[in-house]
Amino acid sequence: MNLILLQPDDFSDDGLAVLSDERARHIYKVLKAEPGKTLRIGLLNGPLGTGTVLAIDQHEVCLQCVVEEKVPPKPRIDLLLAMPRPKVMKRMWAQLAALGVGRIVLVNAEKVERFYFDSHVLVPDFYNARLIEGLQQARCTHLPEVLVRQRFKPFVEDDLDGLFPDSMKLLADPTGEKRLGDFEFFDRRVLLAIGPEGGWTAYERDKLQGHGFELFGLGARVLRTDTACIGLLSTLAEKLGHG
Amino acid sequence: MNLILLQPDDFSDDGLAVLSDERARHIYKVLKAEPGKTLRIGLLNGPLGTGTVLAIDQHEVCLQCVVEEKVPPKPRIDLLLAMPRPKVMKRMWAQLAALGVGRIVLVNAEKVERFYFDSHVLVPDFYNARLIEGLQQARCTHLPEVLVRQRFKPFVEDDLDGLFPDSMKLLADPTGEKRLGDFEFFDRRVLLAIGPEGGWTAYERDKLQGHGFELFGLGARVLRTDTACIGLLSTLAEKLGHG
Repeated sequence: MNLILLQPDDFSDDGLAVLSDERARHIYKVLKAEPGKTLRIGLLNGPLGTGTVLAIDQHEVCLQCVVEEKVPPKPRIDLLLAMPRPKVMKRMWAQLAALGVGRIVLVNAEKVERFYFDSHVLVPDFYNARLIEGLQQARCTHLPEVLVRQRFKPFVEDDLDGLFPDSMKLLADPTGEKRLGDFEFFDRRVLLAIGPEGGWTAYERDKLQGHGFELFGLGARVLRTDTACIGLLSTLAEKLGHG
Repeated sequence: MNLILLQPDDFSDDGLAVLSDERARHIYKVLKAEPGKTLRIGLLNGPLGTGTVLAIDQHEVCLQCVVEEKVPPKPRIDLLLAMPRPKVMKRMWAQLAALGVGRIVLVNAEKVERFYFDSHVLVPDFYNARLIEGLQQARCTHLPEVLVRQRFKPFVEDDLDGLFPDSMKLLADPTGEKRLGDFEFFDRRVLLAIGPEGGWTAYERDKLQGHGFELFGLGARVLRTDTACIGLLSTLAEKLGHG
């Protein structure tokens, strides 16, 4: 935990936060903070700041918090991801939040097994805890918005354009002749689409291209979904200047 | 498995390979191959090719193999990694091989716990199996060379220059003002150094800089070792044109 993330409920108006959950235990046991110690804090979807320990014991920590005026910019990258195997998705939540993603849409595809959508990894309490873990690791405050869409066609036809009206849309696909380095991004948001193990079908690819996606290739290597996701998000963030 | 990786032992001179291990089971059960079916094969540290199934049952597969003349180029990136927690390293082996690394040096550092080096994840039979799994996923044949160095100072002073004589040496560090995008690589090999959770000490950083490492920063986000590794290797590979 490189940041203690606070939510509106944790706070009173005078900037006092009283914690008695996992965060309090972390501050007491791992950080071994004593009164007077200053910790990095952040408000969920808000600014970063500092919290000075006023009182602490093994059950409760009381912090006097001061936050910065400026809220860090929201990550410029969104992710459209064919729902991976639940055990892969379970590992990915924290990493996606740490790398910085504005919105994550998990969508069905021909090569996605239907039962993936029944998994507990798609329960909001489950994934929000992991997303927050990733934010606290990376010292960020923007909680990715998560949408789950179990029907590919209605999502693409009815929702996609409205959800991502001005985004540059890029689709990782072995048939793509361009490389990620060939695109100019200017200051547009980027929506990155990553298919299932086994790839999108020709129908799905055509459908996405019909809604503005441009293809790009990844070279000869065939990567696992999680490796590809982390690699592409990092490469894009580097290109966008980590905005 | 997107490639069946063969070793010299699997072969007779006439290009016949008889498999009776995990690969045979995979070809029989998952690929459900029948006689006449052609599979992608590769020779360890050698060329790619195809293997035609001559005979198959649940115990044994016999392949007639033809390989390409050209051996794919060795990955241009090497990795100097402060030994991560064993459970993190365990997950990383296959991903490092899939992303393409020529040589991996696992080194001690002040913030590395000594017991990490006692882990079974550093036993060659253990990591080679996982590296090969990654190669078979990514359709590559170059097995990364692995070196383990439990003493930081003698490694840097006595081994480093000889092991990486012409490499461009880059060190990921929060104090780095340059970005990965600021470097020109031409056709040099790249040695990427990634520190422990908690970072290199000032002494270690100075020592590495004294042996040719240049610092670069990663932006505000603090990433886990595995996320940072995958992200940086991907970003570098993209810059190097996946050579």
